[in-house]
Amino acid sequence: MFGIMQDWPLLLHRIIDHAAIHHPRREVVTRSVEGPIHRTGYAELRHRALRVAQALRRDGMREGDRIGTLAWSTWRHLEAWFGITGIGAVYHTINPRLFPEQIAWIANHAEDRMLLADLNFVPLLEQLAPRLPTVERYVLLTDAAHMPGTSLRNAIPYEEWIAGCDGDTEWAALDERAASGLCYTSGTTGNPKGVLYSHRSAVIHALVMAQPNGLALGVNDRVMPVAPMFHASAWGLPFVCPMVGAALVLPGARLDGASLHEMMETERVTFAAAVPTIFMTLHQHLEATGGRLSTLKRVMIGGSAVPRAMTESYWRRHGVRLLHGWGMTEMSPLGTLTLAKPEHGVADEEGWLDLSVKQGCPPFTVEIRITDDDGRPLPWDGRTRGRLKVRGPAIARGYFRDEAGWLDAEGFFDTGDIATIDPHGTVEIADRAKDLIKSGGEWISSIELENLAVAHPDVAEAAAIAARHPKWDERPLLLVVPKPGRAPSREDLLRFLEGKVAKWWLPDDVVVVEALPHTATGKVQKTALREQWRDHLLRREAAGGD
Amino acid sequence: MFGIMQDWPLLLHRIIDHAAIHHPRREVVTRSVEGPIHRTGYAELRHRALRVAQALRRDGMREGDRIGTLAWSTWRHLEAWFGITGIGAVYHTINPRLFPEQIAWIANHAEDRMLLADLNFVPLLEQLAPRLPTVERYVLLTDAAHMPGTSLRNAIPYEEWIAGCDGDTEWAALDERAASGLCYTSGTTGNPKGVLYSHRSAVIHALVMAQPNGLALGVNDRVMPVAPMFHASAWGLPFVCPMVGAALVLPGARLDGASLHEMMETERVTFAAAVPTIFMTLHQHLEATGGRLSTLKRVMIGGSAVPRAMTESYWRRHGVRLLHGWGMTEMSPLGTLTLAKPEHGVADEEGWLDLSVKQGCPPFTVEIRITDDDGRPLPWDGRTRGRLKVRGPAIARGYFRDEAGWLDAEGFFDTGDIATIDPHGTVEIADRAKDLIKSGGEWISSIELENLAVAHPDVAEAAAIAARHPKWDERPLLLVVPKPGRAPSREDLLRFLEGKVAKWWLPDDVVVVEALPHTATGKVQKTALREQWRDHLLRREAAGGD
Repeated sequence: MFGIMQDWPLLLHRIIDHAAIHHPRREVVTRSVEGPIHRTGYAELRHRALRVAQALRRDGMREGDRIGTLAWSTWRHLEAWFGITGIGAVYHTINPRLFPEQIAWIANHAEDRMLLADLNFVPLLEQLAPRLPTVERYVLLTDAAHMPGTSLRNAIPYEEWIAGCDGDTEWAALDERAASGLCYTSGTTGNPKGVLYSHRSAVIHALVMAQPNGLALGVNDRVMPVAPMFHASAWGLPFVCPMVGAALVLPGARLDGASLHEMMETERVTFAAAVPTIFMTLHQHLEATGGRLSTLKRVMIGGSAVPRAMTESYWRRHGVRLLHGWGMTEMSPLGTLTLAKPEHGVADEEGWLDLSVKQGCPPFTVEIRITDDDGRPLPWDGRTRGRLKVRGPAIARGYFRDEAGWLDAEGFFDTGDIATIDPHGTVEIADRAKDLIKSGGEWISSIELENLAVAHPDVAEAAAIAARHPKWDERPLLLVVPKPGRAPSREDLLRFLEGKVAKWWLPDDVVVVEALPHTATGKVQKTALREQWRDHLLRREAAGGD
Repeated sequence: MFGIMQDWPLLLHRIIDHAAIHHPRREVVTRSVEGPIHRTGYAELRHRALRVAQALRRDGMREGDRIGTLAWSTWRHLEAWFGITGIGAVYHTINPRLFPEQIAWIANHAEDRMLLADLNFVPLLEQLAPRLPTVERYVLLTDAAHMPGTSLRNAIPYEEWIAGCDGDTEWAALDERAASGLCYTSGTTGNPKGVLYSHRSAVIHALVMAQPNGLALGVNDRVMPVAPMFHASAWGLPFVCPMVGAALVLPGARLDGASLHEMMETERVTFAAAVPTIFMTLHQHLEATGGRLSTLKRVMIGGSAVPRAMTESYWRRHGVRLLHGWGMTEMSPLGTLTLAKPEHGVADEEGWLDLSVKQGCPPFTVEIRITDDDGRPLPWDGRTRGRLKVRGPAIARGYFRDEAGWLDAEGFFDTGDIATIDPHGTVEIADRAKDLIKSGGEWISSIELENLAVAHPDVAEAAAIAARHPKWDERPLLLVVPKPGRAPSREDLLRFLEGKVAKWWLPDDVVVVEALPHTATGKVQKTALREQWRDHLLRREAAGGD
């Protein structure tokens, strides 16, 4: 027997409808790719999204078609998302920082029928276009005045593309399980894999993100998703904000410390979301300039582990709370977030900072477990490490054109992370399974070594990787990037680590490097480092080093 | 094309599973019907709910079966809800304040197979039992020590009923549209109508209720749903609290001012939810005793309009925010809630109080409109009154055994309320459609007259009703209940109202009465008053009154 409640599918266009009606003039502010600050509101944005829907239909786009976007976070990109999903098509965000070959591979795998792109990607696309046979038209996210001459097939400036459309149309009537977005994970091995979100998963994820235990976003917030729209849909914030009537402040292409700081201050940003690298850069800018954060209250940091020193500094100097999040593209992306439960017994600031080093607790709709390699559940004692697996309505069960075989017998998805869970359900990521250092059969956490290393006053960034060792199979090698003007020595750093970890965890060597390679989403490319440094200890031994 | 996300239906048992894992010892505190305070936590509560599931299955209960409850808000009642819905059966809350005939009618209409009841309802049930042929067993919500001798069929104390069950069982695998709860509306005309909730509607409603724009509930809250579990499922709070890890403080059967105040203080309640009458009673208790509210921060008040004077007094004397809500059993029940958007321009406390007189704004998932009698949408200008209609995933599309014909062509449900909506989407309920006073073809709002009357220092409660009039068809008659020890006169009150409303809105007569009749959910029974007082003006005229 079913309940007798209304059939009201959870569809993304209902979010922008709600915002247009109930928060019509709430601002969406963008630092445009062309330069100037652009302002609009949810009512206008919805109307233009309807015009996008008309333009797509006029060009023959149908339900289920993939529309690629190669674009920064701007109001046009957001309008396009709602227009695309509003006709039942699928927005496919492509990370412009990928290698051109990867971009071509992804666009072809997705069989994108159109590509919407920012101006600064035109040269790249002109180079790639001959290899993109499925793309029927290129829409450049600009107006006629800024339109460059281009050889791109059927190229048209966005404003001209929608000029003939009056917005007098209806959204498609869809099943809530209809695909809405496609995002390829920047896999470090093998080909990229496409996560295919549904309207249902995106709406449920937004409802969960906004909760007081979560980001606690409401009608008085002004939210800056620094994480770009091509990074796991800017973590769902483009849906959360119109849902709750928060303003959106979109940084466009300028993600340097000075630009972010200026926009946070002038636009009175209360909440931001970014990977740690961004907030390290911002931190360095604030230190160098004496800048203040006068309206920012909370920041969700995710994508990789957040050093305690950074969390402490933002709190003590700026009164800004860094909430440590963990998730992944496959999770829409929210998995866990810093949450001080009464039983955590956080009595003071130090206690809160200690807690915030961990990745936090999952909200309702995210089920977690840790297992051994045979899939047997492991205890939540805060010490036992296992493979972290997840289950929930906004978590992938497979990938585009590779759907089967990704879940275990009980429907859990293996995140590829190694974690502990404490008795209160607090997750601490020990490492990516493939980044663990296996010394004599025992595991050493690369993340823990890195977190300790960046607490050293001279260290800006650190990476601990497994280097081959004749006796122990693998031993830790620490690579550090010094802060500007500083020159920490190998001995300094080893002394600094002594006593902070078990003796057998101490790196066998420390190398000071100028920079570390990063993935397109800001993570350190451990695979590349391992390839480069794998034989460092062997070479050193051969050369007679200590 | 569907998204490739996990199939994770929104089921109520997932909420208690989450709470048991992530908030296992968060308290559920009850003032038991037997007397003492009882304490449990979500892990224990879930385990006992699983034992209830086993007991139900052992007794032959199946998916879709209705299990009646005639009970106050207690931990056993809550366990029973999760046990019942966990096997796919339907909890059917029966309001014990209804007339015995109504209770029998409802239990028979629902075809309840079992009845779970508090001890104090045993005499009532013994009287009704011969007329309840579908009820196979009566479970009394107590232990063997408190079990009375009774003639009720297969009667058993709850604790004995689950004693043989070890909790080692699985929840049912259900479609999220499965029925979960049944609640009959206390219709003032015609037979009661049963609203049949689904797992999906209840889970979505809970996700929405918790939002920062809504009740803003999280892991540090201690929530007292004074609105009983038989009143629209205690407004969904028994699902919201375990979902977000808030503690539940259940007042059981003692809803008087002194009992509520004591429990709020000793249990450090931060949030409560109740009808205005309850908070008027509490207010009188606090005034009489000089009592303070030292932990309470916010209260959701709904069920009927909240007078500004009460909102102001709670804020100024206790620092407690009364959030004015509007909803109905058919809406699970949340419709709108006080929300100060930036564009409301609330600059100070007076502005906030002015805003809080209105019923507030709908959250995402509640669509609203006002129409004329022909269904044509009316403008949102804050002045134009129309029939308030609603659409959303937690709103009824019909009733149990009366499913069809309740929605308009666009799927909206007519609430029976007359309202204005301002340009910011703020709803103000003018009246129930049937309570409007139609004087010479023009509408007078009974609620507005009542709100003004209770602002008089001598008035505790007021009701304005339509009385027949030879010339104007209907004219307002105001009935007032004085505060203890006060004796306002007809002339006092008319003078007090003068200048506050249009002259033709002034009541034709004011009568001071000892008490007003209330429905089982605390609303003034306008129907009964109309029957009693309908001819008052005609009689007075015949008697030569002015």
